[in-house]
Amino acid sequence: MEKVGLFHFVAEPYLMDFRGRVTLPMIGNYLIHAASSHAGERGFGFNDMSERHTAWVLSRLAIEMKEYPTAFDKINLYTWIDEVGRLFTSRCFELADENGKTFGFARSIWAAIDVETRRPTLLDIEALGKYIDERPCPIEKPGKIMPAENKAEGIPYSIKYSDLDINGHFNSVKYIEHLLDLFDIDQFKTREIGRLEIAYQSEGKQGMPLTLHKAESDPDKQDMAICHEGKAICRAAVTWR
Amino acid sequence: MEKVGLFHFVAEPYLMDFRGRVTLPMIGNYLIHAASSHAGERGFGFNDMSERHTAWVLSRLAIEMKEYPTAFDKINLYTWIDEVGRLFTSRCFELADENGKTFGFARSIWAAIDVETRRPTLLDIEALGKYIDERPCPIEKPGKIMPAENKAEGIPYSIKYSDLDINGHFNSVKYIEHLLDLFDIDQFKTREIGRLEIAYQSEGKQGMPLTLHKAESDPDKQDMAICHEGKAICRAAVTWR
Repeated sequence: MEKVGLFHFVAEPYLMDFRGRVTLPMIGNYLIHAASSHAGERGFGFNDMSERHTAWVLSRLAIEMKEYPTAFDKINLYTWIDEVGRLFTSRCFELADENGKTFGFARSIWAAIDVETRRPTLLDIEALGKYIDERPCPIEKPGKIMPAENKAEGIPYSIKYSDLDINGHFNSVKYIEHLLDLFDIDQFKTREIGRLEIAYQSEGKQGMPLTLHKAESDPDKQDMAICHEGKAICRAAVTWR
Repeated sequence: MEKVGLFHFVAEPYLMDFRGRVTLPMIGNYLIHAASSHAGERGFGFNDMSERHTAWVLSRLAIEMKEYPTAFDKINLYTWIDEVGRLFTSRCFELADENGKTFGFARSIWAAIDVETRRPTLLDIEALGKYIDERPCPIEKPGKIMPAENKAEGIPYSIKYSDLDINGHFNSVKYIEHLLDLFDIDQFKTREIGRLEIAYQSEGKQGMPLTLHKAESDPDKQDMAICHEGKAICRAAVTWR
């Protein structure tokens, strides 16, 4: 089995944003599809993990887009493992058009948790390690994100049916959607998100009252947070160009 | 070209709801994918319509599910045209598993609008009519939905970046998502939506303050509406079992 997986998508016009571009939540869905298919084909997918009473949990994600695909663009999504540690594994992505021109890159960090205790479990370094590939992913690793909740008032939000994933937790992609929706629509008319970075810190669940925060420290970069009782369950940073 | 189109999907676990079932908004996306692909393959898709400065607009949709697909289920989605009129065409759908067992049926009604004036245009009855198929779609046609806005207080909602489609209007599937999110998560634990019906009456746009209404007349059936300045831009009815 090849180390690098290649998955094909077509940017569907009915899923585009008002500018006719693929949205970051949609890119998030592509990445998760590719990650789970790549893992599944290599014996460490959703079903393999379930058998061991474990599940992959996305811990951090950074997406950098040079250019966003537009309607009917064919997208080649490459994904590979670049590091495996005791508790975390790092997976990279490249999105390219059919001629090989890069749309963007992404980096993700995953942990395997026990589905009962929800605590991290040790990774099978040997099994995962044999798929590590040196393919370059020339974007910064996910780093420290500054707290936003002490700089900006929160907008109250209660978790709804559509927010929950198969584990009954706040869906990783829905976090991105709700955070981007804190920006005024007009901002998307003249500017573009160059980099989105998100750190999932703890699991959002039904009945948890949340607050959504966006710290306006810099016109080009905002720190964001989703908090429960004042404590961040998720932090994000968005860089515009 | 066959009259009935067949499209294949796999129910991805990361897109399931907390019960491990495919959501109605996801089914809406499948239907729209199948409808636009079926139309595109027969010369009346998004691009063909754009060339004539027209676009398909979903006017009504009814979905009846006997059973919801669960994680990794293969879904065969059949779609065909069952009626063509001067201004509207009706398209049916059947969702089945790989052995032919029906998950559910759907009926949709579409108009073609002029992209500049946003007014309906006459359909090419001859061109569309040659694809009409008699395949059965044993669910009730979309019918009259009672107003909910005079029976239930509205919850204010402002249109966000993620709500807008490529035409800059409220995305058809996002309407469904926001309406279902008016139900308490607990309701989905013990009950199931048997039928969802939605009528798109006018286009929601950036900056339009909206109200979301759910009339609790019957524990098994609710009428819903999305209003702008007291006038419904969308009505829906949900039947539970």
